[in-house]
Amino acid sequence: MLDNEWGFSQYPFVPGHEVTGTIVAMGDGAKGLAIGQRVGLGWTAHSCLACHECLSGDQHLCATAQGTIVGRHGGFADRVRAQWTWVRPLPDALDMAKTGPLLCGGITVFAPLLVYNVPSTARVGIIGIGGLGHMALQFANKWGCEVHAFTTSDSKEAEARKLGAHHVHNTKQDGALKKLARSLDLIISTINAPQDVPGLLDTLAPKGRLHNVGAVLKPLEVPAFGLIAGQKSVSGSPTGSPAAIDHMLTFSARHSVAPITETYPMSKVNEAVERLRSGKARYRIVLVNDIS
Amino acid sequence: MLDNEWGFSQYPFVPGHEVTGTIVAMGDGAKGLAIGQRVGLGWTAHSCLACHECLSGDQHLCATAQGTIVGRHGGFADRVRAQWTWVRPLPDALDMAKTGPLLCGGITVFAPLLVYNVPSTARVGIIGIGGLGHMALQFANKWGCEVHAFTTSDSKEAEARKLGAHHVHNTKQDGALKKLARSLDLIISTINAPQDVPGLLDTLAPKGRLHNVGAVLKPLEVPAFGLIAGQKSVSGSPTGSPAAIDHMLTFSARHSVAPITETYPMSKVNEAVERLRSGKARYRIVLVNDIS
Repeated sequence: MLDNEWGFSQYPFVPGHEVTGTIVAMGDGAKGLAIGQRVGLGWTAHSCLACHECLSGDQHLCATAQGTIVGRHGGFADRVRAQWTWVRPLPDALDMAKTGPLLCGGITVFAPLLVYNVPSTARVGIIGIGGLGHMALQFANKWGCEVHAFTTSDSKEAEARKLGAHHVHNTKQDGALKKLARSLDLIISTINAPQDVPGLLDTLAPKGRLHNVGAVLKPLEVPAFGLIAGQKSVSGSPTGSPAAIDHMLTFSARHSVAPITETYPMSKVNEAVERLRSGKARYRIVLVNDIS
Repeated sequence: MLDNEWGFSQYPFVPGHEVTGTIVAMGDGAKGLAIGQRVGLGWTAHSCLACHECLSGDQHLCATAQGTIVGRHGGFADRVRAQWTWVRPLPDALDMAKTGPLLCGGITVFAPLLVYNVPSTARVGIIGIGGLGHMALQFANKWGCEVHAFTTSDSKEAEARKLGAHHVHNTKQDGALKKLARSLDLIISTINAPQDVPGLLDTLAPKGRLHNVGAVLKPLEVPAFGLIAGQKSVSGSPTGSPAAIDHMLTFSARHSVAPITETYPMSKVNEAVERLRSGKARYRIVLVNDIS
């Protein structure tokens, strides 16, 4: 969004769509919240509340939903404003300094487990051990699943296992996917680089799903036969509804799911962004306000 | 299969994978059937019965399932042999001369409604009004759905409506898809020609599914953003399990769902095949044995 890679950034631009803080003011129509309450805010800051999707509990799919940093100013500030619906109370057990990344990255990888009613007996692959993937490994493990991490870097194997992977596969090795033929029920791809879709479909068991949360710009090349023969799906999802976010926060509190973070004071935001761009951040950078 | 377009035909080749008849002989292990019973046989003729898929009731997804005409001899004959599992009893109300096409084409388009638990409130699009599509329109209508037929030929509009379409769209007309933006819950594509996948995804409501049963050889070009933004899926399926076939037959009997057929005697099979190749058959040709 900072660099307008998706083409809909508006400048002047205030980033920050994984926000935690306490409520300092509320409008008359705000429901279910209280001044002083610890809360979080993610990708979405507003939805119409009246359309079919909103009334169905899929407020994140509202056609007129507004992003926290799309035509609005985000959380890299001392105050941020959002519709009450999207300002979610934090369970006491969650550390506010570790909760920001759950509110967009976390819900994005938690939502597929929830919305597809993934059984705890499922074998789940996670592609990419980064900002999203390192939380996906934890969620899938605590969900009860057999967890497979896909990486292109052997150096991440030990950490992937610590995060909850039962198996780690280096997809740069010849035959890595072939060994997994017909074995996974769900793959969550968190990367935004082109992938070997036919190869990944072959790793799926019958009725398996290849689910994308990484917004790769080049179209996925999906062989129809690869879908038909094993009754498979290729799908995608954005973040999640307020109710899904609440489930995710409660689940994270119960199972101590938390992102691995590095912390910078807001006054050093440019250093933090530089660190992020370098690809060295493990895995999310949290900015703490020191200038309010 | 006759022309080896999918690359796995074996010659000498006896076609026929939509078969009805009466049982003349049974092996010792055959269960649930009786000599003289009216039965049907579709794409699959054998499955292992012991693997995870078979034990789960997904026998059509068995890794070692055998097609009725894949390495076996099919129904263009006076006798055909198949495992009891795949030989399904026909409800009394079904006309045997009209039931053959239900056993592969019919179950192929019925299965998506069944396996995805499509609600009767859904808006369903059917692409292609041909051998499969003309049965899909009937099933979707009797399922209770709002039915949209997609065709490239205005001449098929009246028939599509008679078969159950509430709306007919000529996709050759500019803007035909645009008018449907965000409106369909499920599209079943029965054609095996390349399609405008991004355009079709845009016609889907949030959480919608573009389902392929037509085995197009060129990969589908699926934009990741088009999946992610509306939490959508692209999927495919083959035929269906024995239990799904039984459901389909019972449903067809209850609602008088039947293919539109032309009939030829088996002694004129070459004329029938010629007619089929001409693209003029409306919609399935039934061969009746006159040489046994």
